[in-house]
Amino acid sequence: MTDVVIRPATVADVPAIVAMLAEDEIGALRESPGDLAPYLRAFADIDADGNQVLVVAERDGELVGTLQLTIIPGMSRKGAKRALVEGVRVGAAARGLGLGTTLMEWSIDEARRRECHIIQLTSDKARLDAHRFYDRLGFAASHEGFKLQLV
Amino acid sequence: MTDVVIRPATVADVPAIVAMLAEDEIGALRESPGDLAPYLRAFADIDADGNQVLVVAERDGELVGTLQLTIIPGMSRKGAKRALVEGVRVGAAARGLGLGTTLMEWSIDEARRRECHIIQLTSDKARLDAHRFYDRLGFAASHEGFKLQLV
Repeated sequence: MTDVVIRPATVADVPAIVAMLAEDEIGALRESPGDLAPYLRAFADIDADGNQVLVVAERDGELVGTLQLTIIPGMSRKGAKRALVEGVRVGAAARGLGLGTTLMEWSIDEARRRECHIIQLTSDKARLDAHRFYDRLGFAASHEGFKLQLV
Repeated sequence: MTDVVIRPATVADVPAIVAMLAEDEIGALRESPGDLAPYLRAFADIDADGNQVLVVAERDGELVGTLQLTIIPGMSRKGAKRALVEGVRVGAAARGLGLGTTLMEWSIDEARRRECHIIQLTSDKARLDAHRFYDRLGFAASHEGFKLQLV
Protein backbone atom coordinates (compact mmCIF):
# COMPACT_ATOMS: atom_id res chain seq x y z
CA MET A 1 0.00 0.00 0.00
CA THR A 2 1.52 3.31 -1.06
CA ASP A 3 1.55 6.71 0.60
CA VAL A 4 0.86 5.30 4.04
CA VAL A 5 3.01 6.37 6.98
CA ILE A 6 3.12 4.20 10.09
CA ARG A 7 4.14 6.28 13.10
CA PRO A 8 3.83 6.26 16.92
CA ALA A 9 0.42 7.43 18.10
CA THR A 10 0.12 10.73 19.95
CA VAL A 11 -2.57 11.84 22.37
CA ALA A 12 -4.18 13.83 19.52
CA ASP A 13 -4.83 10.51 17.72
CA VAL A 14 -6.91 9.05 20.56
CA PRO A 15 -10.36 10.04 19.20
CA ALA A 16 -9.61 8.57 15.76
CA ILE A 17 -8.19 5.38 17.30
CA VAL A 18 -11.31 4.93 19.43
CA ALA A 19 -13.52 5.50 16.37
CA MET A 20 -11.68 2.69 14.55
CA LEU A 21 -12.02 0.35 17.55
CA ALA A 22 -15.74 1.12 17.76
CA GLU A 23 -16.52 0.55 14.08
CA ASP A 24 -15.17 -3.01 14.22
CA GLU A 25 -17.94 -5.64 14.12
CA ILE A 26 -16.94 -7.29 17.40
CA GLY A 27 -15.48 -4.16 19.02
CA ALA A 28 -18.64 -2.10 18.51
CA LEU A 29 -20.31 -3.84 21.43
CA ARG A 30 -17.62 -2.99 23.96
CA GLU A 31 -16.39 0.53 23.18
CA SER A 32 -17.64 3.97 24.27
CA PRO A 33 -16.53 6.54 21.68
CA GLY A 34 -18.70 9.16 23.39
CA ASP A 35 -16.56 9.06 26.54
CA LEU A 36 -12.84 9.41 25.82
CA ALA A 37 -11.67 9.68 29.46
CA PRO A 38 -10.84 5.98 29.95
CA TYR A 39 -9.00 5.89 26.61
CA LEU A 40 -6.93 8.95 27.54
CA ARG A 41 -5.91 7.28 30.81
CA ALA A 42 -4.97 4.13 28.91
CA PHE A 43 -3.00 6.16 26.36
CA ALA A 44 -0.97 7.76 29.17
CA ASP A 45 -0.11 4.31 30.58
CA ILE A 46 0.90 3.03 27.14
CA ASP A 47 2.94 6.12 26.35
CA ALA A 48 4.87 5.87 29.64
CA ASP A 49 5.85 2.22 29.07
CA GLY A 50 8.85 1.64 26.81
CA ASN A 51 7.67 -1.90 26.07
CA GLN A 52 4.41 -0.68 24.49
CA VAL A 53 4.37 0.49 20.89
CA LEU A 54 1.03 1.96 19.80
CA VAL A 55 1.11 3.04 16.16
CA VAL A 56 -1.24 4.56 13.66
CA ALA A 57 -1.26 4.36 9.87
CA GLU A 58 -1.83 7.75 8.25
CA ARG A 59 -2.78 8.46 4.63
CA ASP A 60 -3.36 11.98 3.28
CA GLY A 61 -3.52 13.33 6.83
CA GLU A 62 -6.20 10.85 7.87
CA LEU A 63 -5.80 7.92 10.27
CA VAL A 64 -6.68 4.66 8.52
CA GLY A 65 -5.29 1.99 10.85
CA THR A 66 -3.88 1.22 14.28
CA LEU A 67 -2.10 -1.58 16.11
CA GLN A 68 -0.40 -2.15 19.46
CA LEU A 69 2.79 -4.14 19.89
CA THR A 70 3.92 -5.21 23.37
CA ILE A 71 7.49 -6.38 23.97
CA ILE A 72 7.59 -9.01 26.72
CA PRO A 73 10.82 -10.21 28.35
CA GLY A 74 10.54 -13.83 29.46
CA MET A 75 12.44 -16.76 30.88
CA SER A 76 11.38 -19.54 28.53
CA ARG A 77 13.02 -20.27 25.16
CA LYS A 78 16.44 -19.30 26.59
CA GLY A 79 15.22 -16.01 27.99
CA ALA A 80 13.65 -14.93 24.71
CA LYS A 81 11.69 -11.75 24.32
CA ARG A 82 8.36 -12.09 22.56
CA ALA A 83 6.14 -9.53 20.85
CA LEU A 84 2.38 -9.55 21.30
CA VAL A 85 0.08 -7.88 18.76
CA GLU A 86 -3.26 -6.49 19.99
CA GLY A 87 -5.86 -4.07 18.70
CA VAL A 88 -5.24 -4.39 14.96
CA ARG A 89 -7.80 -2.25 13.15
CA VAL A 90 -8.12 -0.94 9.61
CA GLY A 91 -10.61 1.88 9.07
CA ALA A 92 -13.61 1.05 6.89
CA ALA A 93 -12.49 3.58 4.25
CA ALA A 94 -9.15 1.82 3.79
CA ARG A 95 -10.14 -1.87 3.69
CA GLY A 96 -9.10 -4.10 0.83
CA LEU A 97 -6.01 -2.02 0.06
CA GLY A 98 -3.45 -4.17 1.82
CA LEU A 99 -3.09 -1.93 4.86
CA GLY A 100 -3.48 -4.86 7.25
CA THR A 101 -0.50 -6.50 5.58
CA THR A 102 1.49 -3.27 5.78
CA LEU A 103 0.72 -2.96 9.51
CA MET A 104 1.62 -6.58 10.25
CA GLU A 105 4.82 -6.44 8.21
CA TRP A 106 5.75 -3.32 10.17
CA SER A 107 5.10 -5.25 13.40
CA ILE A 108 7.23 -8.19 12.36
CA ASP A 109 10.09 -5.83 11.43
CA GLU A 110 9.75 -3.93 14.71
CA ALA A 111 9.68 -7.18 16.71
CA ARG A 112 12.92 -8.28 15.00
CA ARG A 113 14.46 -4.87 15.65
CA ARG A 114 13.58 -5.22 19.33
CA GLU A 115 15.26 -8.68 19.35
CA CYS A 116 12.10 -10.70 19.85
CA HIS A 117 12.36 -14.40 19.03
CA ILE A 118 8.66 -14.83 18.45
CA ILE A 119 5.67 -12.67 17.55
CA GLN A 120 2.20 -13.79 18.56
CA LEU A 121 -1.42 -12.76 18.65
CA THR A 122 -4.83 -14.22 19.28
CA SER A 123 -7.79 -13.81 16.97
CA ASP A 124 -11.43 -14.44 17.85
CA LYS A 125 -12.51 -17.79 16.39
CA ALA A 126 -15.36 -15.94 14.62
CA ARG A 127 -12.88 -13.92 12.50
CA LEU A 128 -12.29 -16.51 9.78
CA ASP A 129 -11.03 -13.98 7.22
CA ALA A 130 -8.46 -12.77 9.74
CA HIS A 131 -7.23 -16.34 10.25
CA ARG A 132 -6.53 -16.77 6.53
CA PHE A 133 -4.78 -13.40 6.59
CA TYR A 134 -2.42 -14.38 9.46
CA ASP A 135 -1.79 -17.74 7.83
CA ARG A 136 -0.69 -16.01 4.62
CA LEU A 137 1.72 -13.87 6.67
CA GLY A 138 3.43 -17.03 7.91
CA PHE A 139 1.80 -17.33 11.34
CA ALA A 140 0.91 -20.83 12.55
CA ALA A 141 -2.36 -21.39 14.43
CA SER A 142 -0.46 -23.65 16.82
CA HIS A 143 -2.14 -22.60 20.07
CA GLU A 144 -5.53 -22.36 21.71
CA GLY A 145 -6.26 -18.83 22.94
CA PHE A 146 -7.96 -18.87 26.35
CA LYS A 147 -9.59 -15.78 27.86
CA LEU A 148 -11.34 -15.12 31.14
CA GLN A 149 -13.30 -11.90 31.63
CA LEU A 150 -12.71 -10.41 35.07
CA VAL A 151 -15.00 -7.36 34.81
CA MET B 1 -2.65 -27.27 48.04
CA THR B 2 -1.32 -26.57 51.54
CA ASP B 3 2.03 -25.25 52.73
CA VAL B 4 2.87 -23.65 49.41
CA VAL B 5 4.04 -20.05 49.30
CA ILE B 6 3.78 -18.09 46.06
CA ARG B 7 6.27 -15.22 46.04
CA PRO B 8 8.15 -12.98 43.58
CA ALA B 9 11.16 -14.72 42.04
CA THR B 10 14.65 -13.51 42.94
CA VAL B 11 17.86 -13.91 40.94
CA ALA B 12 18.80 -16.84 43.22
CA ASP B 13 15.76 -18.72 41.87
CA VAL B 14 16.90 -18.56 38.24
CA PRO B 15 18.63 -21.99 38.12
CA ALA B 16 15.59 -23.75 39.59
CA ILE B 17 13.22 -21.89 37.24
CA VAL B 18 15.30 -22.93 34.23
CA ALA B 19 15.35 -26.53 35.44
CA MET B 20 11.53 -26.51 35.57
CA LEU B 21 11.29 -24.99 32.07
CA ALA B 22 13.69 -27.63 30.72
CA GLU B 23 11.94 -30.65 32.25
CA ASP B 24 8.68 -29.78 30.47
CA GLU B 25 7.91 -32.13 27.56
CA ILE B 26 7.71 -29.35 24.96
CA GLY B 27 10.14 -26.97 26.67
CA ALA B 28 12.94 -29.55 26.87
CA LEU B 29 13.74 -29.04 23.20
CA ARG B 30 14.29 -25.31 23.45
CA GLU B 31 16.03 -24.64 26.77
CA SER B 32 19.74 -24.64 27.75
CA PRO B 33 19.96 -25.30 31.51
CA GLY B 34 23.75 -25.64 31.19
CA ASP B 35 24.12 -21.98 30.18
CA LEU B 36 22.35 -19.62 32.56
CA ALA B 37 23.67 -16.35 31.07
CA PRO B 38 20.71 -15.67 28.74
CA TYR B 39 18.25 -16.44 31.56
CA LEU B 40 20.06 -14.06 33.94
CA ARG B 41 19.81 -11.28 31.34
CA ALA B 42 16.12 -12.03 30.89
CA PHE B 43 15.56 -12.04 34.65
CA ALA B 44 17.15 -8.57 34.92
CA ASP B 45 14.77 -7.26 32.22
CA ILE B 46 11.76 -8.81 33.94
CA ASP B 47 12.81 -7.56 37.37
CA ALA B 48 13.24 -3.97 36.09
CA ASP B 49 9.75 -3.86 34.52
CA GLY B 50 6.88 -3.10 36.91
CA ASN B 51 4.40 -4.72 34.52
CA GLN B 52 6.11 -8.11 34.75
CA VAL B 53 5.36 -10.39 37.69
CA LEU B 54 7.52 -13.54 37.76
CA VAL B 55 6.62 -15.75 40.70
CA VAL B 56 7.71 -19.06 42.12
CA ALA B 57 5.83 -21.54 44.28
CA GLU B 58 7.91 -22.79 47.20
CA ARG B 59 7.24 -25.78 49.43
CA ASP B 60 9.55 -26.87 52.27
CA GLY B 61 12.28 -24.60 50.93
CA GLU B 62 12.11 -26.13 47.44
CA LEU B 63 10.81 -24.47 44.27
CA VAL B 64 7.95 -26.50 42.82
CA GLY B 65 6.36 -24.12 40.31
CA THR B 66 6.68 -20.89 38.35
CA LEU B 67 4.58 -18.55 36.27
CA GLN B 68 4.92 -15.12 34.64
CA LEU B 69 2.12 -12.57 34.56
CA THR B 70 2.39 -9.52 32.27
CA ILE B 71 0.13 -6.51 32.80
CA ILE B 72 -0.66 -4.83 29.46
CA PRO B 73 -2.31 -1.41 29.20
CA GLY B 74 -4.41 -1.17 26.03
CA MET B 75 -6.87 1.01 24.14
CA SER B 76 -9.56 -1.52 23.27
CA ARG B 77 -12.43 -2.51 25.61
CA LYS B 78 -12.61 1.08 26.94
CA GLY B 79 -8.92 1.30 27.67
CA ALA B 80 -8.88 -1.95 29.63
CA LYS B 81 -5.73 -3.49 31.03
CA ARG B 82 -5.25 -7.14 30.35
CA ALA B 83 -3.08 -9.77 32.02
CA LEU B 84 -1.15 -12.34 30.01
CA VAL B 85 0.03 -15.61 31.58
CA GLU B 86 3.18 -17.25 30.19
CA GLY B 87 5.62 -19.89 31.35
CA VAL B 88 3.38 -21.86 33.69
CA ARG B 89 5.34 -24.83 35.00
CA VAL B 90 4.86 -27.27 37.86
CA GLY B 91 7.91 -29.31 38.86
CA ALA B 92 7.66 -33.07 38.27
CA ALA B 93 7.84 -33.78 42.02
CA ALA B 94 4.74 -31.64 42.68
CA ARG B 95 2.37 -32.72 39.91
CA GLY B 96 -1.10 -33.95 40.69
CA LEU B 97 -1.33 -31.96 43.92
CA GLY B 98 -3.33 -29.00 42.63
CA LEU B 99 -0.40 -26.62 42.41
CA GLY B 100 -1.34 -25.56 38.88
CA THR B 101 -4.73 -24.50 40.20
CA THR B 102 -3.11 -22.63 43.09
CA LEU B 103 -0.81 -20.76 40.68
CA MET B 104 -3.62 -19.87 38.28
CA GLU B 105 -5.93 -18.75 41.09
CA TRP B 106 -3.10 -16.57 42.36
CA SER B 107 -2.77 -15.11 38.83
CA ILE B 108 -6.47 -14.36 38.55
CA ASP B 109 -6.44 -12.64 41.96
CA GLU B 110 -3.32 -10.63 41.04
CA ALA B 111 -4.84 -9.61 37.68
CA ARG B 112 -7.95 -8.34 39.50
CA ARG B 113 -5.78 -6.53 42.06
CA ARG B 114 -3.95 -4.82 39.17
CA GLU B 115 -7.33 -3.79 37.69
CA CYS B 116 -7.18 -5.99 34.61
CA HIS B 117 -10.47 -6.58 32.83
CA ILE B 118 -9.36 -9.81 31.20
CA ILE B 119 -6.75 -12.49 31.76
CA GLN B 120 -5.53 -14.55 28.85
CA LEU B 121 -3.04 -17.17 27.79
CA THR B 122 -2.28 -19.43 24.89
CA SER B 123 -1.65 -23.13 25.20
CA ASP B 124 -0.04 -25.38 22.58
CA LYS B 125 -2.74 -27.38 20.79
CA ALA B 126 -0.86 -30.56 21.77
CA ARG B 127 -1.44 -29.91 25.50
CA LEU B 128 -4.93 -31.41 25.74
CA ASP B 129 -4.76 -31.94 29.52
CA ALA B 130 -3.88 -28.26 29.96
CA HIS B 131 -6.92 -27.25 27.88
CA ARG B 132 -9.28 -29.16 30.19
CA PHE B 133 -7.52 -27.55 33.14
CA TYR B 134 -8.03 -23.99 31.85
CA ASP B 135 -11.62 -24.80 30.95
CA ARG B 136 -12.29 -25.92 34.54
CA LEU B 137 -10.83 -22.62 35.79
CA GLY B 138 -13.45 -20.74 33.75
CA PHE B 139 -11.35 -19.77 30.73
CA ALA B 140 -13.02 -19.92 27.32
CA ALA B 141 -11.08 -21.21 24.30
CA SER B 142 -12.57 -18.38 22.26
CA HIS B 143 -9.51 -17.48 20.20
CA GLU B 144 -7.00 -18.96 17.82
CA GLY B 145 -3.44 -18.47 19.02
CA PHE B 146 -1.11 -17.53 16.15
CA LYS B 147 2.68 -17.58 16.49
CA LEU B 148 5.51 -16.73 14.12
CA GLN B 149 9.08 -17.70 15.00
CA LEU B 150 11.53 -14.90 14.16
CA VAL B 151 14.78 -16.57 15.25
